[in-house]
Amino acid sequence: MPQAQPLVVPADGLTTRQRRNRALLMVHTGDGKGKSTAAFGMALRAWNQGWSVGVFQFVKSAKWRIGEQSALEALDGVHAQTGAGGPIEWHKMGSGWSWLRRDADTADDYAAEAAEGWAEIKRRLAAGAHRLYVLDEFTYPMKWGWVDVDDVVATLAGRAEGQHVVITGRAASPRLIEAADLVTEMTKVKHPMDAGQKGQRGIEW
Amino acid sequence: MPQAQPLVVPADGLTTRQRRNRALLMVHTGDGKGKSTAAFGMALRAWNQGWSVGVFQFVKSAKWRIGEQSALEALDGVHAQTGAGGPIEWHKMGSGWSWLRRDADTADDYAAEAAEGWAEIKRRLAAGAHRLYVLDEFTYPMKWGWVDVDDVVATLAGRAEGQHVVITGRAASPRLIEAADLVTEMTKVKHPMDAGQKGQRGIEW
Repeated sequence: MPQAQPLVVPADGLTTRQRRNRALLMVHTGDGKGKSTAAFGMALRAWNQGWSVGVFQFVKSAKWRIGEQSALEALDGVHAQTGAGGPIEWHKMGSGWSWLRRDADTADDYAAEAAEGWAEIKRRLAAGAHRLYVLDEFTYPMKWGWVDVDDVVATLAGRAEGQHVVITGRAASPRLIEAADLVTEMTKVKHPMDAGQKGQRGIEW
Repeated sequence: MPQAQPLVVPADGLTTRQRRNRALLMVHTGDGKGKSTAAFGMALRAWNQGWSVGVFQFVKSAKWRIGEQSALEALDGVHAQTGAGGPIEWHKMGSGWSWLRRDADTADDYAAEAAEGWAEIKRRLAAGAHRLYVLDEFTYPMKWGWVDVDDVVATLAGRAEGQHVVITGRAASPRLIEAADLVTEMTKVKHPMDAGQKGQRGIEW
């Protein structure tokens, strides 16, 4: 709720306003649903503020998240046509990163492709390209050693001002959690799959 | 992930397809962030499927969730203009329910207003008005006795086919959780407010 007050006021030499507007590193982890969905929901707020949003989807299935991608690209279209909201870019590893503009069929080395994605994000963070970065399912390339966890943490800690980053996925590295400002764990209490119901259109994708 | 398999196959006489497409009652609860944000993220998928989405926001602050509201209303506008996606209606208790069309200043009896909201949702569920209902912060009127928990659970259990419902808020009733198909608990691991940072534009609203 907006009226909530901080529990402590740190002696960091910042004004409340400066502290308030410090960009955040956020992590959505845990085994439950809603990690990525909540990150895409955040993109709605960012869009409404007119922010530039960059989504980087670190999964191999080209169909996965197609609903969120279509809707956020429609909002990007609204921005382009009317000036309302902000621009949203969606980059997907599964069909080859869009800035590389190569044949998707050549993108079969997942580790190399994940590393290429992270290298591009580093360039954008250095350039201050976006106000919100959604690094979807990025905990997995970190976990599998496709990107270096120390490099990720150091890069994010040293990023240029005013850039929010949200990272989603299970099993977030303890070093990432230590570096983050906001960490939420999504925990499964009950799932229809436990009762024999498979995922369905409009709900799971 | 889409390829996951159910743990059990129930002897309910339904085909896999019938079971798969059975509409869900979903609950996002817990003290962490992302409960509502994930529900609005789900609305993106529903929009992309061309579903009718009804959002019912059971909070009193007219400013709260303004980012999500603006973005989802923009998607409703895309649907109206181009036919892409589906229609999204956003109804907010804080400024008086939109179907009542009365002066917002008269809406100062929160309990009565919450009950009016639930009565309208019951009418829509009976009429099959939407394919996805987002009942945002609806656990609070349930907790505070403004709506009857048994009535809510019985109404949702008996609702017409093909209507998904997601309810968000802390402290969900055990009876609601029992009745739900999917329950996720959002748990706070770390929050910037603990370090003295207040909520900020684009992130909290």
